Amino acid sequence: MFPFEHIISIDKKSNITLYNQIAFCIINAIQNGTLKAGTPLPGSRKLAKILNVHRKTVITAYEELNAQDWITIIPKKQACVSEHIPILQPQKWNSLKSSISYDNNFNLPLKITNKHIDETKTENIPDIIIDDGHPDVRLSPIDELLKTYRSYTSKRHTIKNAHLGTEQGTLKLREEMVQYLSETRGLNISADNILITHGAQMSIYLTSRLLLDSHTNIIVGKPGYPVANKAFEKTGSNLTEVTVDEHGIDTDAIEVLCKKKKITAVYVIPHHHYPTTVTLSVDRRIKLLELSKQYNFAIIEDDYDYDYHYTSSPYLPLASGNHEGNVIYIGSFSKILDPSLRIGFMVAPKNFIVQCTSLRKVIDVGGDGYMQNALASLIKGGELKRHLKKAKKTYQQRRDFLDNLLKEKLAPYISYTLPTGGMAIWIKLNANLSVEKLISNPKLKVLRIDKKQNAFRFGFASMDEKELEQTIDFLQSEFKK
Amino acid sequence: MFPFEHIISIDKKSNITLYNQIAFCIINAIQNGTLKAGTPLPGSRKLAKILNVHRKTVITAYEELNAQDWITIIPKKQACVSEHIPILQPQKWNSLKSSISYDNNFNLPLKITNKHIDETKTENIPDIIIDDGHPDVRLSPIDELLKTYRSYTSKRHTIKNAHLGTEQGTLKLREEMVQYLSETRGLNISADNILITHGAQMSIYLTSRLLLDSHTNIIVGKPGYPVANKAFEKTGSNLTEVTVDEHGIDTDAIEVLCKKKKITAVYVIPHHHYPTTVTLSVDRRIKLLELSKQYNFAIIEDDYDYDYHYTSSPYLPLASGNHEGNVIYIGSFSKILDPSLRIGFMVAPKNFIVQCTSLRKVIDVGGDGYMQNALASLIKGGELKRHLKKAKKTYQQRRDFLDNLLKEKLAPYISYTLPTGGMAIWIKLNANLSVEKLISNPKLKVLRIDKKQNAFRFGFASMDEKELEQTIDFLQSEFKK
Repeated sequence: MFPFEHIISIDKKSNITLYNQIAFCIINAIQNGTLKAGTPLPGSRKLAKILNVHRKTVITAYEELNAQDWITIIPKKQACVSEHIPILQPQKWNSLKSSISYDNNFNLPLKITNKHIDETKTENIPDIIIDDGHPDVRLSPIDELLKTYRSYTSKRHTIKNAHLGTEQGTLKLREEMVQYLSETRGLNISADNILITHGAQMSIYLTSRLLLDSHTNIIVGKPGYPVANKAFEKTGSNLTEVTVDEHGIDTDAIEVLCKKKKITAVYVIPHHHYPTTVTLSVDRRIKLLELSKQYNFAIIEDDYDYDYHYTSSPYLPLASGNHEGNVIYIGSFSKILDPSLRIGFMVAPKNFIVQCTSLRKVIDVGGDGYMQNALASLIKGGELKRHLKKAKKTYQQRRDFLDNLLKEKLAPYISYTLPTGGMAIWIKLNANLSVEKLISNPKLKVLRIDKKQNAFRFGFASMDEKELEQTIDFLQSEFKK
Repeated sequence: MFPFEHIISIDKKSNITLYNQIAFCIINAIQNGTLKAGTPLPGSRKLAKILNVHRKTVITAYEELNAQDWITIIPKKQACVSEHIPILQPQKWNSLKSSISYDNNFNLPLKITNKHIDETKTENIPDIIIDDGHPDVRLSPIDELLKTYRSYTSKRHTIKNAHLGTEQGTLKLREEMVQYLSETRGLNISADNILITHGAQMSIYLTSRLLLDSHTNIIVGKPGYPVANKAFEKTGSNLTEVTVDEHGIDTDAIEVLCKKKKITAVYVIPHHHYPTTVTLSVDRRIKLLELSKQYNFAIIEDDYDYDYHYTSSPYLPLASGNHEGNVIYIGSFSKILDPSLRIGFMVAPKNFIVQCTSLRKVIDVGGDGYMQNALASLIKGGELKRHLKKAKKTYQQRRDFLDNLLKEKLAPYISYTLPTGGMAIWIKLNANLSVEKLISNPKLKVLRIDKKQNAFRFGFASMDEKELEQTIDFLQSEFKK
């Protein structure tokens, strides 16, 4: 008999169930060739004795291995390693030995290429990650959401419901959002005006593909949101940057441009401009809408940060103002719950939404209907509103806590303006320090830096007070070097 | 005192908690104007007596309403409807009354338009939905998946992990898939060769944007998969259809075309061609790979149905054969678990994956990292393999059950070839019947019909035996009409 006590090591204190530990060890031994096809396994009674576990544990392990095809159990006889172990179980259709399939490069010409790609290195998780304004998923009602999700995957009716209309978003979620957007943003719309996407970026991508090509001009803020700008650039459109000062994008400069050339669209982030966090002022909002009518351009209103405004209520969206339909309003639940939860939305006239939906279907068919319906329940039950109220309070506290820490520990090194809302502070380093040098430390990852401005975004919402302190202490020690 | 007993009706047998019922009734009354701002609410003791519930239930309801800003609680005094009820709580920035925001059409010219849009009507859920080959989510290990998902949203470390590298797919999932694709498909690759997408369609879209434009030719099967064809068409590429017979796509016809004009890519569905369900034969597989080398075209291998082959083991993918890197392999977990779970993948040379990832980031930033990592755990723990084994057995039984039903009840009306795998049967109606007439019944929705062939796809995998019987009985009564 094979010395099983040497290949199976179990740890009774581990979180992994005993039977799984046993099964894993046997799979490992099969995979690395220690246990060959056909090798008999000891009877459950015997192995239980060897390993000093209950016999039922061994039986469960064997059943698991059998279910996964690693072993064969002959009833009332013995268990053996499968004759056809799962590795390379499929039928070969070519008698030639497979070449090493993907050693070669793809060698046909590509129609789109991006020469400056920052390849993401994800090999090591840095100790400290400063994101650019993520919510704290630990505060989000994810348990509630997933509980509802699970319940929807078990009943014929709710399954049907989740599979219908996912290219535009389930009707249940869109109807819930009509009410929600009316209450929170004064938007007077119907479910036909809404498209559910995988987040704000997909709304931006769809809009840009519909509106822009190489014969068009679009105005964006400077500094701006690079991922949105890339979507605009990919259409071949000509981007013109307009300065964003402490009141938001400079609408006078937009007017000057409109007089010079045909502008197709203006991209604005009215609540807490990315990356500098300023809010678009009232008079500029009014001016922008007027210009849009006068010069007939579309406003792409990316209002991802609407829900987190601390010093006052947020401003109603441009989309809820006096316009003639050419405002495309973009928002996201990823910023409310978690960036990994890919649910965003866009609001526009029905004819625009119809075309967007048609394009979206070609891109990826549709979204996760269960998640959308679970989110609809969360909105209907009031949990989302309650969460927003709680999160807003917490994030404001964290902003103020960070403000104090910055003053106390980093004052000699940096400058910043405390934002009136949002989840990040835009921090400029003093001239004698370099943001490039800062991020060269492998222990630190900063999601959004600006080399020209020698600045970075400090997303504070995702960190609790202890984590904020650790991060600031780390930065202090870096700056002192 | 306001007659609260008339606006609050509770049902002690309902699944909704009592406090939520009370809260909903009060919200409703505020929303429809019955309860005005500032209206005092009865003390908890008093309301509890009126409604004959425990006082704590009323307190919880009031706390909920307070948390959502519907009411204000003055400690040790009274609860009142908020002075600033949440409706239109945000700051107005424009003194003008909002116009009805989205009554107007969008009136700028669009760069892409699709004139033939089937608008999805989701108002009524039909009694009977025949999908085009969905898995049965009730069999899928969704509970396991969501349990792991939840656990990943509570720890700093697993949260970090889920947020890194999502544009290409988390490293954890890609590494797990290297092993998985080796074991199940003989693919010899590294994590750099994999991109995680929102399903097979997104892989098709990305590939088509990278490979095709108006100067290129692509070959597709006839009849074919319309959603993929649309993605190819949107690039401006010229589509040439090649007949798919009982052995798959006609490779001799492909050779003839290659001699006539430069072919950039061939799109194939080797396991159970959509919609006709045939499997690409061994000799055609070899021929196709040879042609790809000789005429230097890319093979887009959409192998979404690989895991469900009943009569034998499936054939190894073209991608695992002898090629020089120009095979793009596309697969999907949406077909294994549920179409709403948007996780697919593509395998290609690293340089191709890098460009795809860059484009994908612009489209929608990335996927759901928690879901990806939970899926990785499911693969690692063997649950996925076990599920596949069980599902394959069940679907084969359902196929055979349906086969018997069709013979017994629909033989006079239809013809079909039983597929050797997959989740659907391609059913042709006899000439005296019309598939168009069939789907005109609002009680029935059929996801994929072909008017020319007078045929439809009957997805059997998502229905249990009872549901299959109901559906066949329904069809029989329709045909008899």
